[in-house]
Amino acid sequence: MCELLGMSANVPTDICFSFTGLIQRGGNTGPHKDGWGITFYEGKGFRTFKDPNPSCDSEIAELVQKYPIKSRSVVSHIRQANRGKVNLENTHPFTRELWGRYWTLAHNGQLSDYHSLETGRFRPVGQTDSELSFCWLLNKLEQKFPEPPTDMLAMFQYVATCCDELHDMGVYNMLLSDGEYVMTYCTNHLYWITRRAPFGKATLLDEDVTINFQEETTSNDVVSVIATQPLTGNESWSRMKPREFNLFHHGDLVLSNVEQLKDVAFAAAKPGNQAPTEKL
Amino acid sequence: MCELLGMSANVPTDICFSFTGLIQRGGNTGPHKDGWGITFYEGKGFRTFKDPNPSCDSEIAELVQKYPIKSRSVVSHIRQANRGKVNLENTHPFTRELWGRYWTLAHNGQLSDYHSLETGRFRPVGQTDSELSFCWLLNKLEQKFPEPPTDMLAMFQYVATCCDELHDMGVYNMLLSDGEYVMTYCTNHLYWITRRAPFGKATLLDEDVTINFQEETTSNDVVSVIATQPLTGNESWSRMKPREFNLFHHGDLVLSNVEQLKDVAFAAAKPGNQAPTEKL
Repeated sequence: MCELLGMSANVPTDICFSFTGLIQRGGNTGPHKDGWGITFYEGKGFRTFKDPNPSCDSEIAELVQKYPIKSRSVVSHIRQANRGKVNLENTHPFTRELWGRYWTLAHNGQLSDYHSLETGRFRPVGQTDSELSFCWLLNKLEQKFPEPPTDMLAMFQYVATCCDELHDMGVYNMLLSDGEYVMTYCTNHLYWITRRAPFGKATLLDEDVTINFQEETTSNDVVSVIATQPLTGNESWSRMKPREFNLFHHGDLVLSNVEQLKDVAFAAAKPGNQAPTEKL
Repeated sequence: MCELLGMSANVPTDICFSFTGLIQRGGNTGPHKDGWGITFYEGKGFRTFKDPNPSCDSEIAELVQKYPIKSRSVVSHIRQANRGKVNLENTHPFTRELWGRYWTLAHNGQLSDYHSLETGRFRPVGQTDSELSFCWLLNKLEQKFPEPPTDMLAMFQYVATCCDELHDMGVYNMLLSDGEYVMTYCTNHLYWITRRAPFGKATLLDEDVTINFQEETTSNDVVSVIATQPLTGNESWSRMKPREFNLFHHGDLVLSNVEQLKDVAFAAAKPGNQAPTEKL
């Protein structure tokens, strides 16, 4: 088991608070001592910090925790190795270019018979089922859409279909981003929360830290956080269902394959058109 | 103009000393204030630190300077923008996967008419001539060697030929690594030095820092450093010639297209067989 942390926001936002909670699980309050990584997008560019050492005593994790890098899309992971040695090339997240954008994935779970997955020209560098299945996913996307897709909705629906295939091979909880959108897929453990005005206080479960978002935000800010387990004790996190695929854009959940959201989702998936708050 | 810094070593070595000199040129002793980046390989994996802010006052650069990340292959760059805005996606080095390895490139110079370069499936994300020509190079390599090449010498010679084409389009000084090898190409400004026992003291030109390599190394260590301008004042750096392509492996120069080195090089290019010291 590993732990995932993702963020989608409508304004560049720092994730220090949530990351502080997450890294405690990297060998301290949690058993995930086999490395950690975090990717921040800034425009179409990204920066990744990763370390095969436990996050709870990583100097680099300490920097990330203190240094408020502001981003609208973040993908993070702490690892408890099952497939693949503990080393840098097996440390999530993994980033590859497709259609002139950088795609970043972090996976939690374990797949069976994954060596049969055809990755085409996207060759894995490490030995994890996660990276190999990411290469497979990108190869499927490129074969389906040789040119950058104009019908984004069709593309996202295809991503969901591919995730279903991986779900059927084992446990596939994942976060995926192209810098603009954050996609999530759940097999068994994934929660999310959207914070918007009026903002309140939140207290971390893993460390004695409380933050007053009111002081950190403006009334227009919308920020969604996705995590394997809720990170705060005094907020209500929504649990994702098995086979649930969600798409976050600028902080809002805009598309989901969950029935009751479908209508919202399809409308919301049109550029600039976001899901009405009350339906989320 | 930008500045390049590369390292090839036979044992994992930290580059803090050279990097300390380089980053002073990022807005302090030099005009290269438009970002900086450094990629360290560890096994087949890598970690990149980059920032569009001047390196001389970058918190992340400070961490890299203090935190002795040990690597056998390093590619670094500080930028003075000419093509492409100052932002993260235009900040060197650039890393892409080819043949199941991560390839990293940093470029110094400027190309003309580069928009005509065909990049195939390697699409640039940013707007620099450097990233676009890197995508073109990888595309050429993949077309020439659709499968991972077994004849490494032929592959390196092909890289050199491709670099000649880019050289003919303007100024092309570059560092390229797949984590195992460090390749260099020179149009006008590139120097290198190989340090081996008996090690002496070195003093930075850009900051009042002296290091006694004797205390930092063992007698078996071999470390080559490549830079746009010599970083130390009391050592003799070799200046590369226009159209000179060099290949460094485990700290040694093992292949060069410079005439007098060719015989050494071809012998040396065989795995495990390194160029005799006296011929370097």
